[in-house]
Amino acid sequence: MVDIATRVHNHKWKIDPIVRSLIDTDFYKLLMCQSIFRNKPDTQVTFSLINRSKSIKLADLVDEGELREQLDHIRSLSLTRGESTWMRGNTFYGKRQMFTPEFMDWFENLRLPPYHLEKHDGQYELTFEGSWPEVMLWEIPALAVLMELRSRAVLNSMGKFELQVLYARAMTKLWEKVERLRSVDGLRIADFGTRRRHSFLWQDWCVQAMGEGLGEKFVGTSNCLIAKNRDVEAIGTNAHELPMVYAALAESDADLARAPYDVLSDWHEEHDGNLRIILPDTYGTAGFLKNAPDWLAGWTGIRIDSGDPAEGAEIAINWWKSRGEDPMEKLVIFSDGLGEKKIAELHAQFSGRTRVSFGWGTLLTNDFRGLVPDNALDPFSLVCKAVSANGRPTVKLSDNPRKAMGPANEIQRYKRVFGVGEQAELEVVV
Amino acid sequence: MVDIATRVHNHKWKIDPIVRSLIDTDFYKLLMCQSIFRNKPDTQVTFSLINRSKSIKLADLVDEGELREQLDHIRSLSLTRGESTWMRGNTFYGKRQMFTPEFMDWFENLRLPPYHLEKHDGQYELTFEGSWPEVMLWEIPALAVLMELRSRAVLNSMGKFELQVLYARAMTKLWEKVERLRSVDGLRIADFGTRRRHSFLWQDWCVQAMGEGLGEKFVGTSNCLIAKNRDVEAIGTNAHELPMVYAALAESDADLARAPYDVLSDWHEEHDGNLRIILPDTYGTAGFLKNAPDWLAGWTGIRIDSGDPAEGAEIAINWWKSRGEDPMEKLVIFSDGLGEKKIAELHAQFSGRTRVSFGWGTLLTNDFRGLVPDNALDPFSLVCKAVSANGRPTVKLSDNPRKAMGPANEIQRYKRVFGVGEQAELEVVV
Repeated sequence: MVDIATRVHNHKWKIDPIVRSLIDTDFYKLLMCQSIFRNKPDTQVTFSLINRSKSIKLADLVDEGELREQLDHIRSLSLTRGESTWMRGNTFYGKRQMFTPEFMDWFENLRLPPYHLEKHDGQYELTFEGSWPEVMLWEIPALAVLMELRSRAVLNSMGKFELQVLYARAMTKLWEKVERLRSVDGLRIADFGTRRRHSFLWQDWCVQAMGEGLGEKFVGTSNCLIAKNRDVEAIGTNAHELPMVYAALAESDADLARAPYDVLSDWHEEHDGNLRIILPDTYGTAGFLKNAPDWLAGWTGIRIDSGDPAEGAEIAINWWKSRGEDPMEKLVIFSDGLGEKKIAELHAQFSGRTRVSFGWGTLLTNDFRGLVPDNALDPFSLVCKAVSANGRPTVKLSDNPRKAMGPANEIQRYKRVFGVGEQAELEVVV
Repeated sequence: MVDIATRVHNHKWKIDPIVRSLIDTDFYKLLMCQSIFRNKPDTQVTFSLINRSKSIKLADLVDEGELREQLDHIRSLSLTRGESTWMRGNTFYGKRQMFTPEFMDWFENLRLPPYHLEKHDGQYELTFEGSWPEVMLWEIPALAVLMELRSRAVLNSMGKFELQVLYARAMTKLWEKVERLRSVDGLRIADFGTRRRHSFLWQDWCVQAMGEGLGEKFVGTSNCLIAKNRDVEAIGTNAHELPMVYAALAESDADLARAPYDVLSDWHEEHDGNLRIILPDTYGTAGFLKNAPDWLAGWTGIRIDSGDPAEGAEIAINWWKSRGEDPMEKLVIFSDGLGEKKIAELHAQFSGRTRVSFGWGTLLTNDFRGLVPDNALDPFSLVCKAVSANGRPTVKLSDNPRKAMGPANEIQRYKRVFGVGEQAELEVVV
């Protein structure tokens, strides 16, 4: 039987919206948004979409009208009652609400601010300007929209059964990864793949398949909407934008040197347990840890998001030891460019020496490599970053110079202030 | 939106019926049924299910109660108005109806006769007795029910996503065959996979995927219900049961020697064009052709269903030449144990020398080899054959002695009467 109502309803949509909810975003964006809302609500920022894969001519692939429709649709979204209930129900170990009533009041009335879109050299220049807590919420939906419009452009010419076989192949590919990871004893892994997913429905499928295939080894998803709908745990910590904007706001070199710790000091008050995870690589992991205040060593763990991951984990373990902490009580989260082989390898290498967890991103939710000709669905490196704060440019150094961002003279100043020397260049996977 | 009505409706079924239509059967069964209805309506026959793959213990895998429910459901089926319209609409080149009004009147009032079911040594003994035109219609649904109940038994313990990935893998596997066959210039191929299909829905998917993937190279399906629903051509000719029963009815060795030609003489009157296809292997291809009357050389083609297919095609081509026929005007249909590699090979070998066509059976609609542990879904060799007619045993020799059937002394007599000498033993694929 055809469900006539569904079919008629579907045809009433002017577009097929990619992002249909304000919580179709990473959990840490909401956590960071609250922290910013409390500590830096009036900071004016610019976020900008940057396609690090220049060979993918997004503006040639994706129709500008369709892109505008999708972005306009996102601006029409507001938090639903059920989404609000879900957010308010997230607590620290059942005791304290993660999201304060003040923040929820504000968030319930929020609509995303305007965007600015231009085309140059086959690429879109998509920027967002305004107050930090509003603008920062554009990051994930903007990325997800561009990624999925690109997927749709490639899929547009395929037949019905050809499409079904494409997804059949992608499902098989993911399942083979799941079967491989199933044999890794004590694995803990979460989906971090929202921003560069092939599509929303595909991410939703991946999360459910991981749940069935990995059982308790699958610990959750960073995507709030999927976490809510599929009844799995929302996972997240914090990201580079906090130290990047705090650093840009610094008035002196001394302020700059202290900025990354100020971020975590603000974070410390507001968060607990698994949300106290250090992201140390914004201006070089080694220097960050060396100069860190002692209270930071009491945090739950460290997330390794650039550079050689094994090296990063060694540095973290040694740092904890040097501060009198037991690494077996600590958590290392790997989240950079992971494949299932690397995951199994890192787990084998570190699971006896510290607690290990994985945030699996693009190669979980967007691995269509080899499934269509000309690599046309391969994931690519699209980011959306804070590029300025209160009129000053932001800077990121990272543990991999290919991931560095910012004006050259500012990069030099930051390197000096944070004592960053030679860095090994590593290929940016995604 | 959940389609509530569909869901409620589905739960009203006492069982999930495997065969839901009297025309969920091979086209040639209906053509043969009409021929029998006209020429031998009162012949009493016994058909019997034979599992040539003894290692598959069907009675241990498949619950007897479920099997009875499925068989009882088939006995409750009668021809619907739309099915009747479809059958009546099948014509010889738009001129004459394939199915006569007399036959349709009878068929519209038909219900399948009783079955007899016992268990022995882990196998089911399933037999059907009664008048030939009724009993013979059990063959395909009986096979399809057993095949699909076996699939269901194996799939019963699998999770939802594990199942989806299983079908994803099967779809990918079929699509790879389609992609391979797409490059074969001038290919003509049909689905002959009803009797040993993995399931009805899977066959339905395979037919549609072949249609999209192969375009005009896919010429139709032997399954009448799928042909009707999916608007593709129904394909079929005739089968071994005709000469086997005619031979069993023969009163003398001379009658026996003439029986296979009597079959085709009856067939000749009733059929035209692509339905005039000789199936020469029942009692040995070489002898059959050597002794064939000249009018048979005027028929459209020959179907090669046992023995080495290339050898069979050579014999056919040489026979046509010896009878003054141009092989380029003739059609060779290969239909025995075909894989996509063999299809491409035979096409390359013969397409310049005669017209070539393929009836692709079990390895089209039931190739789950390698997709679950322990070969648990591998196709197996289940047949349902006429074993006696008016109380006399039937005999089949075939071009492969492993496919021979009948009492040993009768096999010896048939070999003598038909002049069959040494035969090469070939593995029975499915």
